[in-house]
Amino acid sequence: MQRYFIPAEHWNKDYVTIKGKDVHHISRVMRMEIGSSIVCIHPHDGPALTKIENITEESISCNIVEWLDEDRELPVDVTVAQSLGKGDKLELVVQKGTELGAARFIPYAADRSVAKWDHKKAKKKVERLQKISKEASEQSERSFIPEVTPLHSLKELMEIEGYDWCFFGYADEARQRSSTSLKTRLSKVKTGDKVLVVFGPEGGFSENEVQQFRASGFLSVRLGPRILRMETAPFYFLSSLSYQLEENEGD
Amino acid sequence: MQRYFIPAEHWNKDYVTIKGKDVHHISRVMRMEIGSSIVCIHPHDGPALTKIENITEESISCNIVEWLDEDRELPVDVTVAQSLGKGDKLELVVQKGTELGAARFIPYAADRSVAKWDHKKAKKKVERLQKISKEASEQSERSFIPEVTPLHSLKELMEIEGYDWCFFGYADEARQRSSTSLKTRLSKVKTGDKVLVVFGPEGGFSENEVQQFRASGFLSVRLGPRILRMETAPFYFLSSLSYQLEENEGD
Repeated sequence: MQRYFIPAEHWNKDYVTIKGKDVHHISRVMRMEIGSSIVCIHPHDGPALTKIENITEESISCNIVEWLDEDRELPVDVTVAQSLGKGDKLELVVQKGTELGAARFIPYAADRSVAKWDHKKAKKKVERLQKISKEASEQSERSFIPEVTPLHSLKELMEIEGYDWCFFGYADEARQRSSTSLKTRLSKVKTGDKVLVVFGPEGGFSENEVQQFRASGFLSVRLGPRILRMETAPFYFLSSLSYQLEENEGD
Repeated sequence: MQRYFIPAEHWNKDYVTIKGKDVHHISRVMRMEIGSSIVCIHPHDGPALTKIENITEESISCNIVEWLDEDRELPVDVTVAQSLGKGDKLELVVQKGTELGAARFIPYAADRSVAKWDHKKAKKKVERLQKISKEASEQSERSFIPEVTPLHSLKELMEIEGYDWCFFGYADEARQRSSTSLKTRLSKVKTGDKVLVVFGPEGGFSENEVQQFRASGFLSVRLGPRILRMETAPFYFLSSLSYQLEENEGD
């Protein structure tokens, strides 16, 4: 069933009003009519099954039939901080990271980040990433759209507060068999925890950055014994976290 | 350290001879000289640390210093069968799947595959995918290059033999909470097992295909509760398998 994320101010007790681009999509692209069912998603309350009651050029109103209890969200709140990368790597991270359940993305500039964003470029890039995150949320049937924050400095990342767990992906750990396994890290993460995980640029973190992470209380994470590209590392992390928390029943 | 995959016929007891494009890369691009160390990788025996002994226009000979025991390969042999997809989706699957440890890729045409390959196109596409797999193997420090097979039909896939486990990724399982968890499936997979996993096209498998899989003894796998795009599904599967088998020590 088609799904649309509707801003909080367009919801009432029994009905929801759809405006803007979604109106065109529902009436022209999908050619839906009065009586058709769609899922409307409230930014805080999640998805509701609704039925179209009225269609005009500017708006569509829908009756709320029932609130859905879908349970599509990772049981922990994960923020992926990803260094700027070449080409469309960040777009891939936001698209796939949204499918894999991330709650938030923070783009940041690392010492070795090849790509640079000036102020004007940063605003446009974040808008584009936010659009990708919305589309991926609809496609993957998420109940919430992950936020893409403005560009951060590494210093801002190190000083961030309010997280239960702060991790950084460290490629050199893949080369060491003796380092702490990812299972050891993730098995301590509990439902409701807030997790921040920082991934480095193409050339990895500088030694200085690794020292700063450790000094700021960040724990390094291994992601298997192979050397992953910068954009592959968050896929491994998020998939493993989902496996650990959402696919872990039985033996 | 730079890594090069060298065909079996170029190896002798104590030294290895490098020919073709790698000669240019080593002497011109990397500007390496006699005495430089590189890792040469034998297709069956894996990686060896070597030292350059002689450089000509056509070939480079290297002394074998020691065979390396790197342990970079997934302890199970995983074949990813991926349906043809739009654009460069298959290239992404082969690149990331190689980083994540797959042993083999089989492209195949599903009922709902939008993309079609004719005979001529198929040959070129497979060559291109094989090149991507080689590059990703070098980058991720694999000991072996995953093979990309010629295009298969679904019927050929169903009749394939020699696997301990045959799975298919089934998006509808994500919508059912009661279905068997991925952990239940993967915890039965043992070191040395051969695993085949089949992923569907953009629109998912047809009902007919699902019935055929079940009739042929394939087990369905869940990949978390969100609906993943066709190219994201193998990342989740391979990451979880690596997490289960390679990152599972401790608690």
